[in-house]
Amino acid sequence: MKSVERKATQAEKAALKLANTSTQSRDEALIKIASKIKENTESILEANEEDVEEAEKLLERGKYTQAFVDRLKLSGDKVSDIARMIRSVAEQEDPLGRTLDAKELDENLELYKVSVPIGVLGSIFESRPDVLPQVSALSLKSGNSVILKGGSEAEKSNKILFKLVKEASEEAGIPEGWIQLIEARREVRDLLEMDEKVDLLIPRGSKKFIRFIQENSRIPVLGHAEGLCHIYVDEKADMGMAVRVSFDGKVQYTAVCNAAETLLVHREIALDFLPRIAEKYREAGVEMRGCERTREILEDITEATEDDWRTEYLDSIISIKIVDELEEAIDHINTYGSKHTDSIISEDKDRLLKFLQGVDSSSVMANASTRFSDGYRYGLGAEVGISTGKIHARGPVGLEGLTTYKYYVLGDGHVVDSYSGPEAKSFTHMEISKKWREIRDSWND
Amino acid sequence: MKSVERKATQAEKAALKLANTSTQSRDEALIKIASKIKENTESILEANEEDVEEAEKLLERGKYTQAFVDRLKLSGDKVSDIARMIRSVAEQEDPLGRTLDAKELDENLELYKVSVPIGVLGSIFESRPDVLPQVSALSLKSGNSVILKGGSEAEKSNKILFKLVKEASEEAGIPEGWIQLIEARREVRDLLEMDEKVDLLIPRGSKKFIRFIQENSRIPVLGHAEGLCHIYVDEKADMGMAVRVSFDGKVQYTAVCNAAETLLVHREIALDFLPRIAEKYREAGVEMRGCERTREILEDITEATEDDWRTEYLDSIISIKIVDELEEAIDHINTYGSKHTDSIISEDKDRLLKFLQGVDSSSVMANASTRFSDGYRYGLGAEVGISTGKIHARGPVGLEGLTTYKYYVLGDGHVVDSYSGPEAKSFTHMEISKKWREIRDSWND
Repeated sequence: MKSVERKATQAEKAALKLANTSTQSRDEALIKIASKIKENTESILEANEEDVEEAEKLLERGKYTQAFVDRLKLSGDKVSDIARMIRSVAEQEDPLGRTLDAKELDENLELYKVSVPIGVLGSIFESRPDVLPQVSALSLKSGNSVILKGGSEAEKSNKILFKLVKEASEEAGIPEGWIQLIEARREVRDLLEMDEKVDLLIPRGSKKFIRFIQENSRIPVLGHAEGLCHIYVDEKADMGMAVRVSFDGKVQYTAVCNAAETLLVHREIALDFLPRIAEKYREAGVEMRGCERTREILEDITEATEDDWRTEYLDSIISIKIVDELEEAIDHINTYGSKHTDSIISEDKDRLLKFLQGVDSSSVMANASTRFSDGYRYGLGAEVGISTGKIHARGPVGLEGLTTYKYYVLGDGHVVDSYSGPEAKSFTHMEISKKWREIRDSWND
Repeated sequence: MKSVERKATQAEKAALKLANTSTQSRDEALIKIASKIKENTESILEANEEDVEEAEKLLERGKYTQAFVDRLKLSGDKVSDIARMIRSVAEQEDPLGRTLDAKELDENLELYKVSVPIGVLGSIFESRPDVLPQVSALSLKSGNSVILKGGSEAEKSNKILFKLVKEASEEAGIPEGWIQLIEARREVRDLLEMDEKVDLLIPRGSKKFIRFIQENSRIPVLGHAEGLCHIYVDEKADMGMAVRVSFDGKVQYTAVCNAAETLLVHREIALDFLPRIAEKYREAGVEMRGCERTREILEDITEATEDDWRTEYLDSIISIKIVDELEEAIDHINTYGSKHTDSIISEDKDRLLKFLQGVDSSSVMANASTRFSDGYRYGLGAEVGISTGKIHARGPVGLEGLTTYKYYVLGDGHVVDSYSGPEAKSFTHMEISKKWREIRDSWND
């Protein structure tokens, strides 16, 4: 048996036990993990220092960028942040055991649809060592086993963080084997092939990295490869609002997936709007690339090519296109977008509705900045990721995205034969308000 | 461009329009389809007769079984059933536009999580020609485009049914291209590779057939390859109930996925229980295959081998195993089962709870027959299928399984910058009772 298969088998076994641990025991384990990490700040920083030194050598040889090395680096404050983040996950509501539906099928025959963990998660991530404790905490909270594979650049940091999470959780009574670390790069391929044992992959990293995972595994992937977000300024837009939102969407934070990359502008408002936003963009150092018609208005900007419509800059660059009609904007977004987040600025409700319904993205906004698309801002608590797929979970995903459900049928010796034939009984199919947790707690001795 | 790719592209385009058709227009189209099918009963039966004649030739040559040919055959009554089924889909509640969550993020900034179609479904099925109108109706009701591929044995029946559904729906104003038929067998491979354009596969057919599809496509598959269901008779079982449920689970209908295939019996009750159920099974002509200990009690039955624990008989056969403890039953089910449906018979609530929580199947039952696991009996309306996967939809799946959701953010010029920095505003994150449909209808002029 390959090493990864052995680990996946252990994770699978532990998952069955972990699924039935109490809310309290999972939360206590999280608190313990947070304390253990805080107590071991020194050792964590030492291990991290070794990783950083190694990375700096590669930086000198031009293999890494400074930004890459910066992301790798931990500090005492960052370790405290990690501990705090884990405690905040403990404080969230238990995503397990929620009654999603409850029905009486017939007298004394009841159906409960109840949230349960998915099983085994696979988490593959690059550089930032804070991903390991974060994903571990989310997995534990949601009752899932997790197999972790970090980037080789953070090997020593990941190793010690893994050890601390594992020790603290097992000391707190969480079933051994629920957390697994893969270290060799060649083992990633093995993990991607474990579709019999791993239920969901949650990759973190570059677009190329996520695409590679999506294209090389039959395991479902939660996440997004890119966020190519648009703001469409309609002819019926409020001018001040259009400028404000277009500015925020691009400038507030450029390196994130929900930043705007393309501005679509209705031709009727372009002459008025473009000079105003251009002035603001220029002040903020944003490079503009425009279509031919845009460049008739903003004469000194670069030309946007077909490639620009497909590019997620993640930088202070924006492409601008003038469209003849709302429908052209919708078509452009559905053609070039990444189904992440897109926004319309307009005062006309009929046009807002057409846009909201016509754009096939996970978040579609009216008169708001694309930057709102985020688990924290949506009030989902801890964010697992933003998904641009349509199956299972879409848009910003909270802990709920790490759960599935199970049907419980509670009878009193009921058989299907009673509901067929000439004297068939009928089903009542009545919604009931009883919760599974009440039943569970009353049955638990 | 390959023929399948062209069809998928048309389906994808139509899906964007179909997603925004009104409840009324989809329902009216369904009624029109039902009428058109009924009116064309003669032509349907003629086409079907050609398929049946062809199949009978192959039956003579031993290529098909009689059961296979029977499933292929339509009659006037069956065509009426099809029309009635389509009308009943029209009568169901619209699965689109439901508000799954509604929140105020801040004053005049609202978030709505709203059910929307998935996009393009791929439906691959064998023999029974009533699958085509059923899947088409479910797709249309849920606003999804669908690409259909039926078995070559029903080619002529499928062709005319497809033509009628297409014509009637397009006459009723449903966007052209929403329904596509693939006829060549070699095109199945092409369809399985369309993971960029096809969002979900819904196969119907044999275990081998479903497995083939699961293993040869990166498109998510809704369904199950097999139903290897168990009934566990606990030492604390009520004897009459144990006999009744064990009988119903196996005998009520043997050829279905939710029929019981293995009986697990606690050793403390075996001596009492086994002779009683054996008598009933014998009367019903059920062949029993037992483990060694079972055969000490039921001396004349066949031996069960390791293979039996892995076999979905779909026939009047049951395997029987004596277990020492509840945990052994749970382990057996998690090892050999197919995550479909499993039931425990016991009067002890603590043991019921252990079983319900410990068995990792989509439906787990207490004191009820496994045969209840079914969309109709669960009150889900039209059943799309039963899923044993854990991602997206699990267990019996209704129309809801053909939908995903989309987030709408409705603001008034809100920008993220207001929520950061020293004077950051806070989010209110308050649940609100307003429904998306109200907003939509008031905005629709």
